[in-house]
Amino acid sequence: MVMEINKVIKSTSNQQVKEWKKLKAKKERVKQNKYVLEGWHLVKEAMQANEIIETLLITPEFKYIDEIELTDEEIEVIEIYPEIAKQLSDTPSPQGIFAIVLIQKELEVNPALVDGAWLLLDRVQDPGNIGTMVRTADAAGFAGVIFGDGSADIYQPKVVRAMQGSQFHIKLISGDLIPWIEAFKEKSYPIFGSELNEKARPYDQVGRHQNFALIMGNEGNGMAKQHLEQTSLNLYIPIKGRAESLNVAVAAGILMFQLHE
Amino acid sequence: MVMEINKVIKSTSNQQVKEWKKLKAKKERVKQNKYVLEGWHLVKEAMQANEIIETLLITPEFKYIDEIELTDEEIEVIEIYPEIAKQLSDTPSPQGIFAIVLIQKELEVNPALVDGAWLLLDRVQDPGNIGTMVRTADAAGFAGVIFGDGSADIYQPKVVRAMQGSQFHIKLISGDLIPWIEAFKEKSYPIFGSELNEKARPYDQVGRHQNFALIMGNEGNGMAKQHLEQTSLNLYIPIKGRAESLNVAVAAGILMFQLHE
Repeated sequence: MVMEINKVIKSTSNQQVKEWKKLKAKKERVKQNKYVLEGWHLVKEAMQANEIIETLLITPEFKYIDEIELTDEEIEVIEIYPEIAKQLSDTPSPQGIFAIVLIQKELEVNPALVDGAWLLLDRVQDPGNIGTMVRTADAAGFAGVIFGDGSADIYQPKVVRAMQGSQFHIKLISGDLIPWIEAFKEKSYPIFGSELNEKARPYDQVGRHQNFALIMGNEGNGMAKQHLEQTSLNLYIPIKGRAESLNVAVAAGILMFQLHE
Repeated sequence: MVMEINKVIKSTSNQQVKEWKKLKAKKERVKQNKYVLEGWHLVKEAMQANEIIETLLITPEFKYIDEIELTDEEIEVIEIYPEIAKQLSDTPSPQGIFAIVLIQKELEVNPALVDGAWLLLDRVQDPGNIGTMVRTADAAGFAGVIFGDGSADIYQPKVVRAMQGSQFHIKLISGDLIPWIEAFKEKSYPIFGSELNEKARPYDQVGRHQNFALIMGNEGNGMAKQHLEQTSLNLYIPIKGRAESLNVAVAAGILMFQLHE
């Protein structure tokens, strides 16, 4: 399909530009039901994954314009001036391509969904950590990640950047963790916590599993009590040196690769 | 030792303030042979580790002033106005305490030094990744980390923040990796690379080791050819999902915890 530029926007105070800029805030993402995807690699992945792209924004300087193949003729293509790209971008040197992508409907809680390995985020805050954990979950062959209430938002720009396209590979869900934990229980799948307590077991002494949930807690405060009470087993990574703890994304990586069959 | 405020600085254009601000640049850190440590937790650790602290900077709002116990009477204590703290800080909401710490002399290459497990950074760029890797190396019981030429600097503010004090627990060295690699060879310690090639072995099939070097390569380009040629074995982490790769700090964490005895 030949790509045609449908429109050119030069001014940062254009009304459409203002609406896109608002998508940096979660409230607006929920309202407009869209998020901004930035960079050629990710936009390409979104197209290949048949995501619903509303608009493609391209600066005149964008280098790979000849490589773009529109997968859907309804995608509007708008040329934007570099100043607009700068304002939309999450990085100091934007690549010159953005997609406005529709947010897909959240999956409802359902025990039929929870087969495989799942990562559950219990109020994890740092968007870089969260995005990295999603990317690692993808690499470790996990089925999905559940963003518990109080965790950073799936479509926050820094989360999206760190996920590196893994949102197109595995299921991402947000909401209250408790009903999901109950779904794992209904299937008798183990629920591993990651809080050091007197009953915690070293992470490399519990075998490998095909179906399970792993809960990672908040960077400073760990897991919420109400979730901890629901686990079948708490795991810890023995610290050999003098560091007080591990970065949560590193800890999650070590646990995911160790636990998954 | 009772703490006394030796001086109060109110203006951001004060000459001393200017010198401290310059320490954000590596060139100046080398010239002045100092770096800025920020936050109460880290400053406390530096004192406990008997680091040479030249100056302690405290804002009037700093909450834990009663907890400060000077370990050395030569430490100059300066009260700085919050606006100065803002300019020195690497974070949007500074905690109100900084230490100007002397950079210790670099260790010379010496085979007698390379016992234990060592992490070697081959042009790793992202300061957050690097700091996290140092923290993880500490947690995994490593002896030290060697920052190869072209890697971010040990005392860059974002590296320092992510290390979370691990610079006081393990050895940190910077310089050309080759002579260090030769030192490991002289002791017949294995040198593990982390580049996927046809001879690479899965990381969990090479046993656990007491003395070894693990080299992690650049985020985008991997290891330099000249270092790759020096490895005794290349390891890879099998990717089960559709992510193209792992974040380098996560990969390093998985490898360090798997390889170290």
